[in-house]
Amino acid sequence: MGPFLDIRPAQGPLAPAPCRVKPGPRENFNAPSWIDEPLKHVVESQQFNKESLSEIFRVAREMEGVRPGTPESKCLEGAVMSTLFYEPSTRTRLSFEAAMGRLGGTVLSTESAGEFSSAAKGETLEDTIRTVEGYADCIVLRHFLAGSARKAARAASVPILNAGDGPGQHPTQALIDVYTIQREIGRLDDISIGLVGDLANGRTVRSLAYVLSMYKNVRMFFVSPDVVRMKDDIKEYLSGVGVCWEEVDDLKAVASEVDVLYQTRIQKERFQDRPEDYEAAKGKYIVDAALMQLLKKDSVVMHPLPRVDEIKPEVDSDPRAGYFRQAKNGLFVRMALLKLCLQDRLR
Amino acid sequence: MGPFLDIRPAQGPLAPAPCRVKPGPRENFNAPSWIDEPLKHVVESQQFNKESLSEIFRVAREMEGVRPGTPESKCLEGAVMSTLFYEPSTRTRLSFEAAMGRLGGTVLSTESAGEFSSAAKGETLEDTIRTVEGYADCIVLRHFLAGSARKAARAASVPILNAGDGPGQHPTQALIDVYTIQREIGRLDDISIGLVGDLANGRTVRSLAYVLSMYKNVRMFFVSPDVVRMKDDIKEYLSGVGVCWEEVDDLKAVASEVDVLYQTRIQKERFQDRPEDYEAAKGKYIVDAALMQLLKKDSVVMHPLPRVDEIKPEVDSDPRAGYFRQAKNGLFVRMALLKLCLQDRLR
Amino acid sequence: MGPFLDIRPAQGPLAPAPCRVKPGPRENFNAPSWIDEPLKHVVESQQFNKESLSEIFRVAREMEGVRPGTPESKCLEGAVMSTLFYEPSTRTRLSFEAAMGRLGGTVLSTESAGEFSSAAKGETLEDTIRTVEGYADCIVLRHFLAGSARKAARAASVPILNAGDGPGQHPTQALIDVYTIQREIGRLDDISIGLVGDLANGRTVRSLAYVLSMYKNVRMFFVSPDVVRMKDDIKEYLSGVGVCWEEVDDLKAVASEVDVLYQTRIQKERFQDRPEDYEAAKGKYIVDAALMQLLKKDSVVMHPLPRVDEIKPEVDSDPRAGYFRQAKNGLFVRMALLKLCLQDRLR
Repeated sequence: MGPFLDIRPAQGPLAPAPCRVKPGPRENFNAPSWIDEPLKHVVESQQFNKESLSEIFRVAREMEGVRPGTPESKCLEGAVMSTLFYEPSTRTRLSFEAAMGRLGGTVLSTESAGEFSSAAKGETLEDTIRTVEGYADCIVLRHFLAGSARKAARAASVPILNAGDGPGQHPTQALIDVYTIQREIGRLDDISIGLVGDLANGRTVRSLAYVLSMYKNVRMFFVSPDVVRMKDDIKEYLSGVGVCWEEVDDLKAVASEVDVLYQTRIQKERFQDRPEDYEAAKGKYIVDAALMQLLKKDSVVMHPLPRVDEIKPEVDSDPRAGYFRQAKNGLFVRMALLKLCLQDRLR
Repeated sequence: MGPFLDIRPAQGPLAPAPCRVKPGPRENFNAPSWIDEPLKHVVESQQFNKESLSEIFRVAREMEGVRPGTPESKCLEGAVMSTLFYEPSTRTRLSFEAAMGRLGGTVLSTESAGEFSSAAKGETLEDTIRTVEGYADCIVLRHFLAGSARKAARAASVPILNAGDGPGQHPTQALIDVYTIQREIGRLDDISIGLVGDLANGRTVRSLAYVLSMYKNVRMFFVSPDVVRMKDDIKEYLSGVGVCWEEVDDLKAVASEVDVLYQTRIQKERFQDRPEDYEAAKGKYIVDAALMQLLKKDSVVMHPLPRVDEIKPEVDSDPRAGYFRQAKNGLFVRMALLKLCLQDRLR
Repeated sequence: MGPFLDIRPAQGPLAPAPCRVKPGPRENFNAPSWIDEPLKHVVESQQFNKESLSEIFRVAREMEGVRPGTPESKCLEGAVMSTLFYEPSTRTRLSFEAAMGRLGGTVLSTESAGEFSSAAKGETLEDTIRTVEGYADCIVLRHFLAGSARKAARAASVPILNAGDGPGQHPTQALIDVYTIQREIGRLDDISIGLVGDLANGRTVRSLAYVLSMYKNVRMFFVSPDVVRMKDDIKEYLSGVGVCWEEVDDLKAVASEVDVLYQTRIQKERFQDRPEDYEAAKGKYIVDAALMQLLKKDSVVMHPLPRVDEIKPEVDSDPRAGYFRQAKNGLFVRMALLKLCLQDRLR
């Protein structure tokens, strides 16, 4: 069970919350653990509310228009960002570093802080953070242990941006996903979304379900092989806040219903001693040209990438294939976060 | 047999094309596979012709004069280059990154995209390219598989610069070599060149022979141990386009004849199960102070570096020792390529 | 015996030079091996004298005031620094790269030049330096072999900054330590310092003792477990130049005497076959809240970091805990060195 919401898992199977047109009252909504406004750290999905998300997305939209040579492209000139990666994640690292570069900032890069000689010598994460903050105006942290970003934020006097802490949080990915839905569909209320694939292990889909639950009249369909179904803590949470959700076996039935089809990779590394389970799970739900025929005209297909076979390359040329635009949105959202975190510190 | 020219190797030993003063008509010249003008990608040596080379070299010469603080030193300000290296090549990577930095651009660096978690998870090169092009304005690709750069260029909407794809191409090295000859000797027509060392495995000498064949009245001498002689495909090609070439055993005889003495390293890694062959090959052709006595006054000694023992350190102080100037020319040629690839995209 | 001062170790135990109030005449002071003024390379502690240190510290103090967007923050714009690290040292690398970035310069970064394909192919350090100097205006070298920085400096036409060469020198650390004492205590003459922990293996404390010996009326107390006592070459040197020093067993007695308490880590890797010796040595001298009670009001606790248990976290909030400020001073001292090395080359 993931540490996502720090709530007790349900004891038995949950009844779905049938997709009603209007959700129930939201008064019993579990308040997020903290709101960080003005933005200092980016640690976990729960720190955001609709207002702070709206502000981040407004700035991200501005970032799409930043052109080389303009004053905006130098707004972080002189600022220094350090990427402190205890496990490799080249895609996330490049995206943050590009975001800093596109705003004129400087980057200190580490690909393998895990071999960081200081850590090997027994230095605590807190001491490392307190040393690196002597050099950098913000730290992008990737760590293999859940809770590391929160620990770093407590020790730090500069902003910490969580780029994934083990099975814990990867909050910028959730922001990118929600921003992409808004950009592609034009709204966040009144959305139907199908979450497909590995819903048990993917922190991406768990965070996305949580963040979308803040918006009005969101309907969720969970489509996954039996062995990797969405866990009860999220289902219980959604029911508690009045979001309707349903588990569905038939991807085709869902395809014609949804505005967003969010596909994910079945992670081979989770099936180490059960190769036949992996093969069965992997082949069950594929997005191909035939499935695209069923999808609504104004819908979008998303994927956190990398993909293997779960979306066929023949889909790439379909205008509704949004996954590479989604990847690119990572740049704009991270530019927005860096700008919001650093702009007051530079004055 | 390398994939260099996609031509069938000759069936038997070839007769040399004796070094005539005037080459035969060039009408039977095999047209390059494609010309890329204005420059978009830099994928293979065959994409260039005399006109595009001349333009690149003109800009490279300008690049030699770029000084910090001048507008030219900021002409790529705001542009982002990603080095995507699936195998390490620190020298090539630093040279490209320096080139980008000297024009004011920003660099996203990877030293080990081979451990790139996405590739490990089964992502295709095309998907990686389409993701990284969301962050960067051009991609410098180093890959262990021949043909990777061409594959990447087909998928990409941003320029791909091939920094070596396995046993395939390393086109920027060939450009640097030809640029160096022009800078050191003052011309590219009417050149005599001795290619020395491992001519079988070095993609460097193969590409250089190909590119030089475009110029008038070029004479080539191949001086190599028997086990690493120049392969027939290149010899056949040269004969076909009227370039005179000759295989010669005696380095001393060649030394007094040539304008350019191009030495290469015998690559130990090619002789894994034949250490005695390696030792024999390695010691056969050495450039030392005695050999320099035989060389023409206005000639130049070149080497793609790194060297081991095949040029003695005693030669370094000779003004004709051009190999470190050749390495430095890598900076200017890569600055020129980046400028030519990116200047229109930034407007 | 370390190669620090190239002097013959004493044959037997040395008598301490009791801490007199006034040191003896300094005429018999061993002249440093070379003085490098104006600053070209930063190779070893002995190259500095009081005048050159004073100039470096004056510039470092200016560097503390550099703010983003000011002309000073761009004084190295267009300059390129290469970090050439043959062994990892993330802390030192980030600190140098931050220093270059804060002055507007560009960085070419290598984390693992040890796997540098050229070195693996048999290239000499000199050849690597002569290649990299074609791309960069200065080279920050970290190497596993003592003497490498001096060798590189001999080959180079650009400044070499030694970021540690094996058991040899780490001169920037010594400069940072001395700068920190001046910043924290307000003077370098008339200082009492307690050097604590592993005094046998730490090049840090050896260099610090050497550099401090240039100043007037410096008193040193060596507090270390028996197995890692300060070596005789340094003791002999100090006695020779009239610096009073004493070996003391009782850290508490020293604590109330000193202006500077310089704690170091007992390096586990030095006790590989003697784990019980390590445990005994490690626990012997700990700086904790109780010890802080004994320390003078205006004193400072320093540590080169990383620390393990030898300073308790409870000390961190004490205003006299200077080790994170010391780490941050690394930025200012390295900014000063880069500015001094590069400013004339850019004109």
